[in-house]
Amino acid sequence: MLDADGYDRLAAEYGTPLYVYDGEVLAGALDRLHRALPDGMEVFYSLKANPNLGVCALLAAHGARAEVSSLVELMTAVRAGVAPDDIVFLGPGKSPAELTACVATGIWAVVVESFQELDELDRVAAAANTRQRVLLRVNPSTSAGRSGLTMGGKPRQFGIDEKALLEAGPLGDRHPHLELAGIHAYLGTRILDAGTVVANTALVLDMAERIAKATGIGLEAVDVGGGLGVAYFDGEADPDLDALREGMAGAVAPFRARHPGTRLLFETGRFLAALAGTYVVRVRYVKDSMGKRFAVTDGGTHHHMAAVGLGSYVKRNFPVRLLSRPGAPADGPWQLTGPLCTPHDLIAKDVPLPDPAPGDLVGIERSGAYGPTASPGLFLSHGFPAEVLVHEGTAHLVRVRDEPADLLDRQRLPLPFEKERPWSRQRPSTRSPSS
Amino acid sequence: MLDADGYDRLAAEYGTPLYVYDGEVLAGALDRLHRALPDGMEVFYSLKANPNLGVCALLAAHGARAEVSSLVELMTAVRAGVAPDDIVFLGPGKSPAELTACVATGIWAVVVESFQELDELDRVAAAANTRQRVLLRVNPSTSAGRSGLTMGGKPRQFGIDEKALLEAGPLGDRHPHLELAGIHAYLGTRILDAGTVVANTALVLDMAERIAKATGIGLEAVDVGGGLGVAYFDGEADPDLDALREGMAGAVAPFRARHPGTRLLFETGRFLAALAGTYVVRVRYVKDSMGKRFAVTDGGTHHHMAAVGLGSYVKRNFPVRLLSRPGAPADGPWQLTGPLCTPHDLIAKDVPLPDPAPGDLVGIERSGAYGPTASPGLFLSHGFPAEVLVHEGTAHLVRVRDEPADLLDRQRLPLPFEKERPWSRQRPSTRSPSS
Repeated sequence: MLDADGYDRLAAEYGTPLYVYDGEVLAGALDRLHRALPDGMEVFYSLKANPNLGVCALLAAHGARAEVSSLVELMTAVRAGVAPDDIVFLGPGKSPAELTACVATGIWAVVVESFQELDELDRVAAAANTRQRVLLRVNPSTSAGRSGLTMGGKPRQFGIDEKALLEAGPLGDRHPHLELAGIHAYLGTRILDAGTVVANTALVLDMAERIAKATGIGLEAVDVGGGLGVAYFDGEADPDLDALREGMAGAVAPFRARHPGTRLLFETGRFLAALAGTYVVRVRYVKDSMGKRFAVTDGGTHHHMAAVGLGSYVKRNFPVRLLSRPGAPADGPWQLTGPLCTPHDLIAKDVPLPDPAPGDLVGIERSGAYGPTASPGLFLSHGFPAEVLVHEGTAHLVRVRDEPADLLDRQRLPLPFEKERPWSRQRPSTRSPSS
Repeated sequence: MLDADGYDRLAAEYGTPLYVYDGEVLAGALDRLHRALPDGMEVFYSLKANPNLGVCALLAAHGARAEVSSLVELMTAVRAGVAPDDIVFLGPGKSPAELTACVATGIWAVVVESFQELDELDRVAAAANTRQRVLLRVNPSTSAGRSGLTMGGKPRQFGIDEKALLEAGPLGDRHPHLELAGIHAYLGTRILDAGTVVANTALVLDMAERIAKATGIGLEAVDVGGGLGVAYFDGEADPDLDALREGMAGAVAPFRARHPGTRLLFETGRFLAALAGTYVVRVRYVKDSMGKRFAVTDGGTHHHMAAVGLGSYVKRNFPVRLLSRPGAPADGPWQLTGPLCTPHDLIAKDVPLPDPAPGDLVGIERSGAYGPTASPGLFLSHGFPAEVLVHEGTAHLVRVRDEPADLLDRQRLPLPFEKERPWSRQRPSTRSPSS
């Protein structure tokens, strides 16, 4: 774990704002999860949580497989060293280019989300003169709510309704270039209660057997989704991994006994990536306004949109720490804001902090998931931050900071505006307001 | 204005998803605003609404000045042809590099947001052996609410509290390298009621006189903010520009009579850019789920986050049109979604549309402001879309689409992970769950 000096050195070398990932914490989360899941259940890292190449490579080196949802995520997983046999691709709106890349790369399975997509993928596989393994994504009629209670399913763009699949009749032979090899379901996100994950798993395994029986598709694999969360806010606790181990063992054992050869996939993004990441910002200005104290930093919600509210409208604070003076007693409350011209640019509200001064470093912790790539990094043309992975005591720059030229070079000035420049010297008096 | 064929050609040439800006509509909005404002009041385009170089150049060619808030926005304005004398720079967390660039470029005024920033800018100007003009941003004790009622101000990271300024004593001579030349205030955003803009303007002009008197600073300029909105949702109407013209004339005339030489700045971003922009997406899949109909498109909220809810948690729809068959009678309701793996990726909810089919083009209208740059374009590694400006009948590519290499090349694979690749061939059986 990094100490105050460590953050200071990283900030000096790579600048701020900066995302720092701790490789030890990343590997530790994966290891803990592996130990909490039944033997043979494989962990598929959901790149959407953090598609950084270095993060993916480290997790892959520790045995994570990859769940990807775009062409670039697929390319990232391959570059990170994940074998094609350990990659699945899902998403409700896959492009022809993405389907083609899946087949060309020879990934283990495409998770297909509609009957129309089955037809399209069959054509793509036929054109490549191959057979592509497919998992059918199911939108279940029910799901497990908080504490594992069964709830009704919802209309969704994802997958095929369970009912539609059960009524579809035999599916195995309709697509000569596809091998329908199992099912996928995803029943929730940011689940903190181990019991809910266990109940979802049991529900998906049961559904898989029923659908396989009704449609004649294989059970080479079942992807039980995942959705394991981490605690961010006051009153939350990280999932109880002992309870998860016990519950999952019980939920999986009967299925495993009946289907010893079935590959079991567990997807997780946030649980692996969140704890390892710290968003490091530097205080630029300190000020009072109408009785409140503000620390204006060089980082903001354009790099950390989750800090605005995670889809909720109630502002809750991520854990925040003054990195520069770790032992100092907290005072407060402080408003931690960024450089954006909007009152929404509030990283933390009424947070106790040892009085920050210009130049101090502040860390927003547990920020390794849904960080920069889930944030509007081009807002106010600030660009995306640098990212650093600390691995076995060495810092590696794993994403370079956007420099002004990087942003400007993507743009083109139309020719008509290159030729005539003096317009901007028009003064207001030369403009006729009645024209 | 583009017809169905026009959109079809643009989509074929530049691909989808695509942002299309109509130059005629851009220029028209600026022209209407110029005519609604008192003679001599200058329109400063807030680049944060849409920092596209082509959009800025077109507006500059029609007499817009520029209000910028970052180094890259400043560079964009200059490249777009705005004269330094027509640029102001504001923002609560300006970096030393930004302050230096302001002075080096010789922009007309830096809008300073704290006493600390005054000191820093003075040092920067001293180092450059020059004098920098400054407007003081004021956080007013009151503002005009809906229908122009006066409301209390709020604690903010922006500006200096009005009370603190009034009590500061003489300010004019404290900073030898600064010329304190007036004030700036910004009192609201997305205001649809002309009367509120008028009341805010009167309030700021009055405050400017009081602060100038109390502190001895000049009144070379007053930036009255702006915040003029456009209608997006059912039940909203665009601002009444006749009412604005009449109200602004009355609000400004007495001040103008007392201060004939004062430059009056009116900031606006959304009002100029919003109407001109259409987010063009192509339908990939059409499906039913539990009684609801979904059109899954190749575009989504990673390019148009405003469509998710504009900071509100109640989902309201931007105007949506099936571009491919403009005359067809609407059916519905449809859920218009994108390729992201989240139920939040809902561009429009329960919207009537002529039954869309795969391949159809859909336009999300009034989307020229706070579009791609205010959205998480790297989410799921899809990247930012192409942008096209149609100017006098010709389409100009003004922002190239992010290609996979553009996203991957920003990342670095740490050396330790380049050397040892075969880890990913670990099978689950080789992993000891108790290790």
